[in-house]
Amino acid sequence: MKEMTLTYSQLWQFAYSVFKKINCPEDQARLATDVLLSADLRGIDSHGIARLSGYVRLWEVNRVNSNPNIKIVHETPSTAVVDGDSGLGLVIAPKAMEIAIQKANQVGTGWVAVKNSNHFGIAGYHSMMALKHDMIGMAMTNASPLVAPTFSVERLLGTNPICVAIPAGEQPAFVADFATTTAANGKLEILQRKNQDAPEGWIQKKDGSISTNPNELKDGGALLPLGGDREHGSHKGFCLGAWVDIFSAVLSGANYGPWVPPFVSFLAPPADPVGDGIGHFFGAMRVDAFRPADDFKKHMDNWITRFRSAKTVEGQSHLIIPGDPERECELERMQNGFTLNSKVAVDLQALGAKLGVNL
Amino acid sequence: MKEMTLTYSQLWQFAYSVFKKINCPEDQARLATDVLLSADLRGIDSHGIARLSGYVRLWEVNRVNSNPNIKIVHETPSTAVVDGDSGLGLVIAPKAMEIAIQKANQVGTGWVAVKNSNHFGIAGYHSMMALKHDMIGMAMTNASPLVAPTFSVERLLGTNPICVAIPAGEQPAFVADFATTTAANGKLEILQRKNQDAPEGWIQKKDGSISTNPNELKDGGALLPLGGDREHGSHKGFCLGAWVDIFSAVLSGANYGPWVPPFVSFLAPPADPVGDGIGHFFGAMRVDAFRPADDFKKHMDNWITRFRSAKTVEGQSHLIIPGDPERECELERMQNGFTLNSKVAVDLQALGAKLGVNL
Repeated sequence: MKEMTLTYSQLWQFAYSVFKKINCPEDQARLATDVLLSADLRGIDSHGIARLSGYVRLWEVNRVNSNPNIKIVHETPSTAVVDGDSGLGLVIAPKAMEIAIQKANQVGTGWVAVKNSNHFGIAGYHSMMALKHDMIGMAMTNASPLVAPTFSVERLLGTNPICVAIPAGEQPAFVADFATTTAANGKLEILQRKNQDAPEGWIQKKDGSISTNPNELKDGGALLPLGGDREHGSHKGFCLGAWVDIFSAVLSGANYGPWVPPFVSFLAPPADPVGDGIGHFFGAMRVDAFRPADDFKKHMDNWITRFRSAKTVEGQSHLIIPGDPERECELERMQNGFTLNSKVAVDLQALGAKLGVNL
Repeated sequence: MKEMTLTYSQLWQFAYSVFKKINCPEDQARLATDVLLSADLRGIDSHGIARLSGYVRLWEVNRVNSNPNIKIVHETPSTAVVDGDSGLGLVIAPKAMEIAIQKANQVGTGWVAVKNSNHFGIAGYHSMMALKHDMIGMAMTNASPLVAPTFSVERLLGTNPICVAIPAGEQPAFVADFATTTAANGKLEILQRKNQDAPEGWIQKKDGSISTNPNELKDGGALLPLGGDREHGSHKGFCLGAWVDIFSAVLSGANYGPWVPPFVSFLAPPADPVGDGIGHFFGAMRVDAFRPADDFKKHMDNWITRFRSAKTVEGQSHLIIPGDPERECELERMQNGFTLNSKVAVDLQALGAKLGVNL
């Protein structure tokens, strides 16, 4: 099979039908579909429809509960811990973010740590939920260990992304959504498909020496924290990944560090868990808890305009404001459709055939 | 003059006397001294006693108010904005952090943005104030523009540090305190003194090309965001620096980006300010707002122990947990004293002579 181009509504109908087939309640199937496809819309193809069959396989081995009882297990006026009951992170995460937003409405800010969850799609979806309320949104999650901290040969952390979404006025929102590694795993997958080497500073061999082989993780190698090596600040990337891990899991009671369960059904979770499932952390801050929202937005517009129009190095027309490429991708794909590479197309055809859903 | 070694109490007495001479009230002179010297204790020599004469020069040109009226100008149960009245950041910052801690006591978390301030010393001091309350502390600040975002030849951001301090039980606290650039400016100063080149990825020339000259900033060059170049994730370092700038200054009403006033008295602030002074942002989160403090601390101990004992690359005995080097430095210096390099010693002697304070 060659690659395959679909409209948003075709993709949406397929994913929704799959979530219904694994017994997600109606509202959760819709929500999971919206969250999943927000990754394809924003160009983060590793986290979108390409991951759908993986979620189904986790459900098949009883590691995803398709009808979870998601509940608050601890709270204060500005905080909560949510137990996700092993549900889809795609469903648990936006529900937790809603709680953060409600608390921000009441006391200025809301902060929600989540345990007993699974992969939550892209951090950007959840933090951007805050924008329409004139709030700053934050989202982070831990993930299966693929990253070796500075001086380690063991993989102890996930790619542990952070997203901060900040509303503006006439300008589009500032949305910084990034893995705390030099490069996300999805970037390696692209190189693998193209048979190209990775730059130095992305990965190391299993003995900790430098590698440019994008397949190195299969031989016990590891991704590197942002910075790459000590001389270029990898200890700072380690700080970031550790921060995400601790907020997501030590605060909530989820598994942390090397105990985080793998996302794939063919690898068993560690036999000695230190908590429940994987963990996330969300925040919402009303901008008018600090200054009038119109003042804030006027200055955000000024910030964005000034940075975007800065003098650039030769060959670049303007600075890229965080969120610009993803927004442009969304416009382009809504117009021209979503092209699935042949491997993903085959995988989804097989999934559809198994569950009786047409692609 | 050669270098000079002093005890903590000698350094303290000198700095305290200087703050008194510039008319700081008694309690503020003590606080400013404690905050200033916490940098020397923790080995961040660029932010400690070496900066004292710079603060005095800013006071001499009326850019530091030694007796400020520090007040809350906007608040909700979990947030506040503090106007520092052009005081020393060394005094304003811990007072703002106290407010964050009080709010966390009441509603679980507290978040304070500060405007109209000056350089606040090390972020670590302020965030670590939370630890004894069994709270997580966060501190960030913007700073004079020395950093070129990805693709920019203009300096638009400061080194904008972030500190996250997380309490543990039997283990020492996790304290990650880092500039959001590949290397902090203090690292360049060390290379300048030693006449050594910088690694690639730390700095660029004024046209945006690669430089290894640690004096490049004097010729219009710039520090680089963590990551160094686009291929190694400098856009993520830019996201971090931008996040700090927006939380510190757009939320509070301080100057942001290229409008942040310089720390040195011989450079005038921009003629077209967009806010008041420089900005900071502080957070405090009670760990028992999420789970019982003893549970949290037990798991933090487990986190720290597991990471510290991970298998290492050859030549390294163990992983470095954020905060380890600074704590070891503090123990060593309290025992062996503080060695000032000859340039700093001469500068402080001159300061003492001018103000009638013995060093």
